[in-house]
Amino acid sequence: MKQYKYLLSEKDMPTQWYNILADMKNPPPPYLHPATLNLMTPDDLASVFPTGCVAQETSRERFIDIPEEVQDIFRMYRPTPLIRAHRWEKALDTPAKIYYKWEGASPTGSHKLNTAIAQAYYAKQEGLTGFATETGAGQWGCALSLAGSYFGLKIKVFMVAVSYRQKPYRRVMMETWGGEVVPSPSAETHAGRAMLEQDPDTPGSLGMAISDALEYAMTHDGYKYSLGSVVNFVLLHQTIIGLETMKQLEMAGDSPDIVIGCAGGGSNAAGLIYPFMRHKLTGETPNLRAIFVESTACPSMTRGTYAYDWGDTAKTGPVTKMHTVGHGFVPAPVHAGGLRYHGIAPTISSLLNDGMAEARAYHQNAAFEATLSFSNAEGTILAPETAHAVRAAYDEALACKEAGESKVIVFNASGHGHFDLAAYDAYHRRALDDYELEEAKLAAALEGLPNVK
Amino acid sequence: MKQYKYLLSEKDMPTQWYNILADMKNPPPPYLHPATLNLMTPDDLASVFPTGCVAQETSRERFIDIPEEVQDIFRMYRPTPLIRAHRWEKALDTPAKIYYKWEGASPTGSHKLNTAIAQAYYAKQEGLTGFATETGAGQWGCALSLAGSYFGLKIKVFMVAVSYRQKPYRRVMMETWGGEVVPSPSAETHAGRAMLEQDPDTPGSLGMAISDALEYAMTHDGYKYSLGSVVNFVLLHQTIIGLETMKQLEMAGDSPDIVIGCAGGGSNAAGLIYPFMRHKLTGETPNLRAIFVESTACPSMTRGTYAYDWGDTAKTGPVTKMHTVGHGFVPAPVHAGGLRYHGIAPTISSLLNDGMAEARAYHQNAAFEATLSFSNAEGTILAPETAHAVRAAYDEALACKEAGESKVIVFNASGHGHFDLAAYDAYHRRALDDYELEEAKLAAALEGLPNVK
Repeated sequence: MKQYKYLLSEKDMPTQWYNILADMKNPPPPYLHPATLNLMTPDDLASVFPTGCVAQETSRERFIDIPEEVQDIFRMYRPTPLIRAHRWEKALDTPAKIYYKWEGASPTGSHKLNTAIAQAYYAKQEGLTGFATETGAGQWGCALSLAGSYFGLKIKVFMVAVSYRQKPYRRVMMETWGGEVVPSPSAETHAGRAMLEQDPDTPGSLGMAISDALEYAMTHDGYKYSLGSVVNFVLLHQTIIGLETMKQLEMAGDSPDIVIGCAGGGSNAAGLIYPFMRHKLTGETPNLRAIFVESTACPSMTRGTYAYDWGDTAKTGPVTKMHTVGHGFVPAPVHAGGLRYHGIAPTISSLLNDGMAEARAYHQNAAFEATLSFSNAEGTILAPETAHAVRAAYDEALACKEAGESKVIVFNASGHGHFDLAAYDAYHRRALDDYELEEAKLAAALEGLPNVK
Repeated sequence: MKQYKYLLSEKDMPTQWYNILADMKNPPPPYLHPATLNLMTPDDLASVFPTGCVAQETSRERFIDIPEEVQDIFRMYRPTPLIRAHRWEKALDTPAKIYYKWEGASPTGSHKLNTAIAQAYYAKQEGLTGFATETGAGQWGCALSLAGSYFGLKIKVFMVAVSYRQKPYRRVMMETWGGEVVPSPSAETHAGRAMLEQDPDTPGSLGMAISDALEYAMTHDGYKYSLGSVVNFVLLHQTIIGLETMKQLEMAGDSPDIVIGCAGGGSNAAGLIYPFMRHKLTGETPNLRAIFVESTACPSMTRGTYAYDWGDTAKTGPVTKMHTVGHGFVPAPVHAGGLRYHGIAPTISSLLNDGMAEARAYHQNAAFEATLSFSNAEGTILAPETAHAVRAAYDEALACKEAGESKVIVFNASGHGHFDLAAYDAYHRRALDDYELEEAKLAAALEGLPNVK
């Protein structure tokens, strides 16, 4: 009898996060202040993020306890299943074994809830009354809204204007959990009003929404700012994904040859990959391949440069060393909105630079082709971002077929695609563009990097 | 440490369905032919439904084997979790223990997939090439499309025109799994063309869509018709829900006092309730309360009559004895589209008539009020249909608080609400109508019942 699902009981859920900074040969250099480009102190960071998170940001402890109260809420939906894709393997006629970690099983539909709950916990501990944040299509705003509901925090979400108008359902979802959602640029902030004055009909952007959220947090008592990816503590919170997966693969009697995640800022991919990367860093599993998959529309890892850059368009957030296409780069409007961030997490950047990980980029039609084949065999309909990881798994599985090798491939099924069916519709109608990178645009954006030695 | 989820391993998944016909004091009387009102023979039924299903429809075997191949596909998403709603109990400040069976965990988002897979299996066994069916909002069409994809069957879905136009995402989901979806009334059938001639702009109805699907199935070689609720074999296929729940409650060390499901045709409610009802029918658990919850907009159980009626508006499907508001009754446009069917399953009707079960109706605002309280405590956003079951659980939990009793309440969380957020939006804006039943309309519809002694 084939077994599909590897389920951990709640009592076997990991009680610590894994901190890759403890094992990295080259941990990322410190953040710089956005205006002065001087080193940012922990106090500088703590004016933005919850103090508990700032402490984690630079910690060198290998394992960090997950607070009891966070564990208690995690157990409502975690451990999530690890699923063997028997039917997809058969459809691909591959000798590879393919597993996927099903993070779409969370109530908000993606891995984002893992860090949202942790951040809300630390905010509550500190006595904050609320968080301000930005959201694109709404995945992150949903996660933080629900986390706010769990902990009795007010959540103010600045949603990119074009998404606010075109994708009302994610907004309704946030409101259902008590989030307060406004379009960005917003008339409620100086930054937003200035942007609206320049262009009253602007569609907005994530960079503008970050500026709105940062200003709102700084000017409202009891509020701090919450970020859903990129920084160390967010990736730390996601490592529960990989820690669970390790236990589940043990149940299955397998160990991975290839681990894969899609990467915008990089948190879901790092969440799966880092606990496995630990043993590669210590030399125990030198042949493990870790693949971070991005969109060709925003190729920070495959076409960007490794340098200091601002985290946001308006240059109000910390400056960090990372693979970047430049904070001024405006990616083509691919459906994988979560892959349209101009940089990649500092720790991932350093691992790539050290040759410990691989990066790969796909066009969206290639991603949809693979994920359609997955959905017809396995059922589940995945998010366009996740589809990029699926494509990498698909290509590796076909390479195994070619080579007659039975490798173990694991990818993170980071979210479902229930709010992305317009993208599927466009794919069915052959109306999806494979935007080619505009070299001049990339070169211009890279010229805007800060002048840091 | 609180435990939230009770998970069965795949090897503990039930391998047989429970057939309540074996234990009922008064099994429902036979179907009548829609035109002649004479008894329908098994051959008559087999011209419509797969032969394997027809055999189950009248079987008196208490337990019926689930075919190996069906079990194999079930194991991709089953057993589904039984979840203790600790946080909701706390929010309601009730001494009751509330459990919910999470059927929204299936790839199509509801319990519907359970019977779709079984029906597709029997169709394939028989050598059929396809199924025709109807769908309202698309939940059933999605389930059958995915089941068709699993078994290599063509699925033709007639989708009620107004939903086809207003709710494109469920259509895209069906197409993603290979279903062919057309609006109903359809120019592809005689019945559809006649209806379009009468009114080219008709919004359509489930009754019309059934006529389209029945005609399409009858006039296309290798096709039969598939139905997603009401008849015995569909309810049989859903009993795996309750059989799993029994095992899971044993793990939790509890036995239920009250079991609850929302009921349009009745399949998800019966799926949860029937395995428990067995022991009430045999006298072992005389105090068990089974509650079927409907919408006040279509109150077949609480305001209808118990009589023979046609299963569809166009009078082309079998005539069956059931609680009905009349096949000509047009319910108000509540968001719980799945609760807008004019009748209720014959077996449920008989149990109600024998006083073995309770029926209850709620307005949609009451349902949304309860399900919002659930979502803010538990996270998961449920379908408007399911919200009616939530309201019953909510009222029973508050009654426990009033009485200081710690009863065990179990309800079927039959589906998620990801495609129903427009309804949530309307609720937030206080724009949901609580339609009062038009007595004259009900009386007129009840006059249209067939003249059967």
